[in-house]
Amino acid sequence: MGIIVQKFGGTSVGSVEKIHHVANRVILEKEKGNDVIVVVSAMGKTTDELVRLAGEMTSRPEKREMDMLLTTGEQMSMSLLAMALQNRGYKSTSLTGWQAGIRTEAVFSNARITEVKTNRVESLLNEGRVIVVAGFQGMDENGEITTLGRGGSDTTAVALAAAINAERCDIYTDVDGVYSTDPRYVTGARKLNGISYDEMLELANLGAGVLHPRAVEFAKNYGIKLTVRSSMEETEGTLIEEDAPMEEHLVVRGVAFDKDIVRMTVVGLENELTGFPAVFSILAENHIDVDIIIQSKLDTGKVNLSFSIKESSLDETLQILGRHKDEIGYQEIEHETNLSKVSIVGSGMVSNPGVAAQMFSVLAKHEIQVKMVSTSEIKVSVVVDSNEMIKAANAIHESFGLNRSAVEA
Amino acid sequence: MGIIVQKFGGTSVGSVEKIHHVANRVILEKEKGNDVIVVVSAMGKTTDELVRLAGEMTSRPEKREMDMLLTTGEQMSMSLLAMALQNRGYKSTSLTGWQAGIRTEAVFSNARITEVKTNRVESLLNEGRVIVVAGFQGMDENGEITTLGRGGSDTTAVALAAAINAERCDIYTDVDGVYSTDPRYVTGARKLNGISYDEMLELANLGAGVLHPRAVEFAKNYGIKLTVRSSMEETEGTLIEEDAPMEEHLVVRGVAFDKDIVRMTVVGLENELTGFPAVFSILAENHIDVDIIIQSKLDTGKVNLSFSIKESSLDETLQILGRHKDEIGYQEIEHETNLSKVSIVGSGMVSNPGVAAQMFSVLAKHEIQVKMVSTSEIKVSVVVDSNEMIKAANAIHESFGLNRSAVEA
Repeated sequence: MGIIVQKFGGTSVGSVEKIHHVANRVILEKEKGNDVIVVVSAMGKTTDELVRLAGEMTSRPEKREMDMLLTTGEQMSMSLLAMALQNRGYKSTSLTGWQAGIRTEAVFSNARITEVKTNRVESLLNEGRVIVVAGFQGMDENGEITTLGRGGSDTTAVALAAAINAERCDIYTDVDGVYSTDPRYVTGARKLNGISYDEMLELANLGAGVLHPRAVEFAKNYGIKLTVRSSMEETEGTLIEEDAPMEEHLVVRGVAFDKDIVRMTVVGLENELTGFPAVFSILAENHIDVDIIIQSKLDTGKVNLSFSIKESSLDETLQILGRHKDEIGYQEIEHETNLSKVSIVGSGMVSNPGVAAQMFSVLAKHEIQVKMVSTSEIKVSVVVDSNEMIKAANAIHESFGLNRSAVEA
Repeated sequence: MGIIVQKFGGTSVGSVEKIHHVANRVILEKEKGNDVIVVVSAMGKTTDELVRLAGEMTSRPEKREMDMLLTTGEQMSMSLLAMALQNRGYKSTSLTGWQAGIRTEAVFSNARITEVKTNRVESLLNEGRVIVVAGFQGMDENGEITTLGRGGSDTTAVALAAAINAERCDIYTDVDGVYSTDPRYVTGARKLNGISYDEMLELANLGAGVLHPRAVEFAKNYGIKLTVRSSMEETEGTLIEEDAPMEEHLVVRGVAFDKDIVRMTVVGLENELTGFPAVFSILAENHIDVDIIIQSKLDTGKVNLSFSIKESSLDETLQILGRHKDEIGYQEIEHETNLSKVSIVGSGMVSNPGVAAQMFSVLAKHEIQVKMVSTSEIKVSVVVDSNEMIKAANAIHESFGLNRSAVEA
C-alpha cells in the first residue's frame, strides 16, 4: 500500500453535491489501504467570479493582489472537502499551498515550484489523515503567496507526488482520458489507453488542455505514473508513463490544435548577433512564452525575426518591445492575429520519415496555407489561419488513421 | 503626522461600490500626511454564505476547517481594496493575518492575539504604502490559521495600532457612534460624544455589539484612542479614551441588553470546595464563556450552582457537564432558556449609591421579574424573561434620564 495523490479540477468540485461525490472517490482509494493526498482547484466558476470582481476594482490589477485574491478559491474548496470527509468519519486536514510546503520562485501569477517541504504532510499522513491541499498556489522565499499559472493544480499534484514518492498521481477531470484529438471538434477522436510523457508533453504544450505541461514535465523527471480519468464515471482513463506501447500501424499518437496565436515580426533587425538574444531575454524576463521562431534574411543584410506568442500576451509584448527599441535595434514591429497552430505528435515519427511530407500534402489538398512550421523529433506543428484550424485538424486526424472507425476496423 | 489604523466592517465593504467608497476614506486620511493601515472584514454576506456551504458539508464542521474556510472572506476583501487603492494611484499591499504578523494562541474559532510582529508592516509603511490587513485572523505557533471570534476584526485593528504605536484607531461601521442604548429598540437612544474604556468594555461585553470587548481591552491596556464612526457619513463619531467627561446630572452612561441567555443550574453539588473549580475550569478549558454566577445552599448541605451562558453554547455545555458528571459530583443539570440580560453602565455609579435600588424599583413598577443579578463598580445587570427585555430597557433608559429629549432639555 502506498501513497496516492488525487487531483480534482474545478468542474469536479463545482457544487456541494460534487464535493460530496469527490469525497466518495477519495474514500474508495483510502479504503484500499492507501494513504491519500487530494489536491483541489477552486469550485467551478469561483475563479471567473473573482477575476470579474478584480476587474471592477481596476482595469489592470497588480499580479500580487490577483494572486492574493485567486488563492482564496482553492482555500474554500479544500476546507469544504475536508469537512465532507470528516462528515463521513474520516480524519482529514486541509492545507494551503504554503502550509503543504509548496515553495516557488518569487514570481506572481505564473511561478514555478522550487521545492516541496514534505514534513508536515508526512506527519499528518502518519496520523492516518487524508490531506487536502489547495492546488495552484505556493509561497515564495519572502512569504508572499504566489500562483502557478493556468492548470497549476496539476503541477501541485505531481510535485507533491514526486516529493513524497507517491505510487501514482490520478488527475480526475471532466473528460475520461487523453484523446487522439479534441472530440469537441473532431468526430473520430478516440480515447488513448496509454501515452508517453514526451508525447503528452507535446500535446499538453500544444494546447490539448487536459494536463498542464509543467505537471507532465515533473512526472517525467521523477518517473511518476500519471493517470487522467473521469471524476464522474468509473472508467480506466489514460495512463501516462515513460514507454507507452504504440498501437499497430500508427506513427502518430494525436493531433492537437490551439487558437489565439499571434505571429510577431521584428522587422529590420540591425544586428543579428546581439538582436536575437536581446529580444528573447527581454521576453523571458517578462515571462512571455515564445513558441515557434523563424528568421529570414533581407537583401539589405538586415534580418526579420518572426515568432509566435499567445494572443493574451500581445499587448504586453508590444509594450515591452516598444520600450526596448533602442536596445534591440530594429525598424518596426508587425503582428498578425487570428492564427492557430495544428500539430501532430507521436514517438513513432523518429523512425518514420515522410510524416511531415504527408501532413503538408494533406493540407495542400485542402488548400490550407501554412504560415509557420516547427518540428521536433516527435512532432510537427503548422500555423494556419484560425478559420481553417478545425478543417486542418480533421483532415490530418483522418489521414494518419487515427479515427475511431479506422482503428477498430 | 502619525500612523492611523482604520477598520472597516463587513457592511462597509459589502459591494464593489462600497469598497471604492472605502478607498476614498483611506485616501482622505493618507492625504493628510498620515501613514495608514486598513483592517477589513469579509464583504457583507460572504461569511454567512461560507457558513451555509459548510453546513451543507457536515452538520458539525471541525473548528479548524471552519477557520480555514472563513478566513478566505477577509483575504478577498483585502485584495480588492488594495486593487481599488492602486487604481487611484496609491501604492498598496494587502496582507493576510499571518503575513501581517498577527500571532495567536493555538485555539480555533476564538483565539486570542499573543503577539504582533510588526517588521513587515513597518517596512511596507516606510515605502509609503497603504497596508490593507485581513481582520479576524491570525496564525498560531504551529503555522495553523486561526480566527479571533466574533468582532475579531476590531481586535486586529487595535492590536496593530498598539503594536505599531498608532496615533489613533478609527473603527468605521454602519452606525455613527456608540449610543446610550440600542436605537433599534429604544426610541430615546442618543449618540455619545465620549465614553471611557471601562464603560465601553462593560457595554461591549453586555452585547452592545458596536465594538468587540477584546478590542476595547487592548485599547485600554495600550492607551490607544479609539473612535467609532460611520463609514457612510462625515460625522464625528464617539471617542473612547481613559477619562471621558460625564454629562451633567447623569450617573449612568448607557443601557445594554442581550438576548439568548441561558441559566444553567448544577443541582446538588456534592462538594462545594472541589465542585466549583471543577465546573468552571472544565468550561474554561472548552472555551465556554460563563457570565453571572450564583450559588444557593440547600438544607441537605448540598449546594446548587447557577450560571449564565450564551444560548449558542448550550448544547456543548450540556455535553461537557454530562461527560464530567463523576468528576464534578452532582445530581442533575437544569437549564432555563429564553432569558435576556439588561444592564446599566456608568463610571458615575461608584460615588452614587442607590443606582441599583432605582433600577430594581423601575423593574418592580413594570412588574418585571428579576431572575439573576450581578454588579460591578460601574454596572448592574439583571436577567429577565426575554419577552420583557425591551420593556425593561426602555423603562430603565428613561428612568435614568438618558432619553434624548431629557438631556437636550
